Amino acid sequence: MEVILVINSGSSSIKFQAFSMDGTTLEPIAGGKLEELYTAPRMTVKRVNGEVIEDRRWPDGESLPHEKALDFLFDWLRTHAAGATLRAVGHRVVHGGEHYGEPVVIDDEVLAALDKLVPLAPLHQPHNLAAIRAIAARNPQLTQIACFDTAFHHTQPSVATRYALPPDITNQGVRRYGFHGLSYEYIASVLPQYSERAARGRTVVLHLGNGASMTALAENRSVASTMGFTAVEGLVMGTRSGSLDPGVLLWMIEEAGMDARAIGSLLYKRSGLLGVSGISSDMRTLLASDSPAAAEAVDLFCYRISRELGSLAAALGGLDAIVFTAGIGEYAAPVRERVCRAATWLGVSLDDDANARHGPRISDAQSAVEVWVIPTNEELMIARHTLGLL
Amino acid sequence: MEVILVINSGSSSIKFQAFSMDGTTLEPIAGGKLEELYTAPRMTVKRVNGEVIEDRRWPDGESLPHEKALDFLFDWLRTHAAGATLRAVGHRVVHGGEHYGEPVVIDDEVLAALDKLVPLAPLHQPHNLAAIRAIAARNPQLTQIACFDTAFHHTQPSVATRYALPPDITNQGVRRYGFHGLSYEYIASVLPQYSERAARGRTVVLHLGNGASMTALAENRSVASTMGFTAVEGLVMGTRSGSLDPGVLLWMIEEAGMDARAIGSLLYKRSGLLGVSGISSDMRTLLASDSPAAAEAVDLFCYRISRELGSLAAALGGLDAIVFTAGIGEYAAPVRERVCRAATWLGVSLDDDANARHGPRISDAQSAVEVWVIPTNEELMIARHTLGLL
Repeated sequence: MEVILVINSGSSSIKFQAFSMDGTTLEPIAGGKLEELYTAPRMTVKRVNGEVIEDRRWPDGESLPHEKALDFLFDWLRTHAAGATLRAVGHRVVHGGEHYGEPVVIDDEVLAALDKLVPLAPLHQPHNLAAIRAIAARNPQLTQIACFDTAFHHTQPSVATRYALPPDITNQGVRRYGFHGLSYEYIASVLPQYSERAARGRTVVLHLGNGASMTALAENRSVASTMGFTAVEGLVMGTRSGSLDPGVLLWMIEEAGMDARAIGSLLYKRSGLLGVSGISSDMRTLLASDSPAAAEAVDLFCYRISRELGSLAAALGGLDAIVFTAGIGEYAAPVRERVCRAATWLGVSLDDDANARHGPRISDAQSAVEVWVIPTNEELMIARHTLGLL
Repeated sequence: MEVILVINSGSSSIKFQAFSMDGTTLEPIAGGKLEELYTAPRMTVKRVNGEVIEDRRWPDGESLPHEKALDFLFDWLRTHAAGATLRAVGHRVVHGGEHYGEPVVIDDEVLAALDKLVPLAPLHQPHNLAAIRAIAARNPQLTQIACFDTAFHHTQPSVATRYALPPDITNQGVRRYGFHGLSYEYIASVLPQYSERAARGRTVVLHLGNGASMTALAENRSVASTMGFTAVEGLVMGTRSGSLDPGVLLWMIEEAGMDARAIGSLLYKRSGLLGVSGISSDMRTLLASDSPAAAEAVDLFCYRISRELGSLAAALGGLDAIVFTAGIGEYAAPVRERVCRAATWLGVSLDDDANARHGPRISDAQSAVEVWVIPTNEELMIARHTLGLL
């Protein structure tokens, strides 16, 4: 059996999924994660049917740096998948910059180019590249593919990506890139199976996970997105603030005496749903809570989505369809209900029963705008790209 | 004759306008400005009919600090309006914070409260307060009134004003305030004369001057605005950037080695139309230019307005009317045309001839949304408030 391995290497975890390839057919086999690498390492692996085939914790106080973690993973795979041949590894890489609008086979030149993008995504890009290097060191002949979270947004017009800053800044790559591109690309790839109108028309996709963004698709191509230069702009997220007045950051520096590290930590880790609620970054917890602060956090989350929906409908010049995806989008019926009620002015009419069942279509027959719930699959998108480049 | 003097004291200029008061009737008499106070002071005064009654320059190298400028102005007024009795001075004050939702008669307690808001508007508030103090020192018995640019927005719901930041930050006053409130309040006050539907319904007002913002009015009350904590958020402006990913500021600090002062100067003075075009902050110059960069700046300006129009329509749950005001809004027909064309999806249909004539109504009979051009008058609004508090 030939296998493609998909790797998503973050700051403290490595997620992976294995797909069997048979001609052009990809089937998921198993997947899992190595997490809390630097604090309390743990590895879990499940077969696609949900059967747990590994659940291992490292002794207290041990740390598992990325290189060691990948070594462990590859040793584990050799033992547990002895009959399989690893044909290639596909990586999720957060930033492809202005150059990479497509996935690419990684070589030294590509790696050097991706290194140069680290200043644009200092929290994520280094960990993506560390995984690529660790695997290359162990298996120099193995084909590795980089799939970029920014690439799908390369179709956006410059008016959507430009900030109103002078060229001495914008020429250094300061522009809106948009992220979650592999999720949007997957949705765009399956959208024709759900609705010709949505795939050919003006559709806003809401990727609502722990990170959250929205993208406007015109004929299935990205024309605008809520995330911009980094993955902190736009919507309220689990622990991220979303959009802020630039003057708020100047105030933090000049009046609150914060430095960039403190501000970054605040905006990425202590804000969003967690910051407003003071309770949790998890929408399930907040929806189950009767705390007023939890309700305020959910209100704000839904309100900002509604505002951005209007803004993205403007980018499209109207709206044919809305698609909800990712954790909150796929499972939080109360959030979808509130977003849809607030979108009545756009012609949205909700089918409550279908919404309770999580779709797939949750708009009723009278709705002028179709509303869909479609599960995303970024790993499969990466596997497809990897197969396509072999 | 009894007179109300309106003062708008900025960082390098003091604008003033005198109104005669007769019972509840206010009539403008004359107005002017003292400008370039610290570089090349100049005073110009015109009667309301346009006749220039003063145009004075100070000798090269002389500087005219705010106190001296106001002394000069009051001496000049005593000479040139000897028969008039100054009853009160109304000031435009940028920030009224969370407390002041109405104009207020200034006393020591109020001044102390307004001093505490300086960190929220360090570029403007000190100059507003300096003028108040200079006049009080000279005329301790004279009634002075503070009218706030933030006050009109006090009707916004908390979901519109809250950033997704934790309470240790938001409790320090970090929220959206909105600005240009005296302009929006003036528009709201005259809107019933133009259209009952606009005044009672869902209306977005575009205040497009050198500073630019948009406000959503529901039944003539502010429910959302594009400017937030400071006057740099939101639209592209003459020299201000408008909204930016917070990550752009972190990049400026960590990667470009800029400090808060350099960033503030960039975002307030070198960005916006000027930064993108490299030519001018003046829309008239850009519209007359055949430079591609000028066209790009105008494109971006109009595009961001269109996006915010969708966002504010969402805040209102639909749209009954649009009002253009301030310099660009009142005189730049090509900008209005582009904004209206992009709003076709909202039901806007433009009357080209009426637009060329600058209105007042520029939507045609088929338009589902009314579009108006209404001149703003912040000075008259301040004079009215001042009269109301006497």
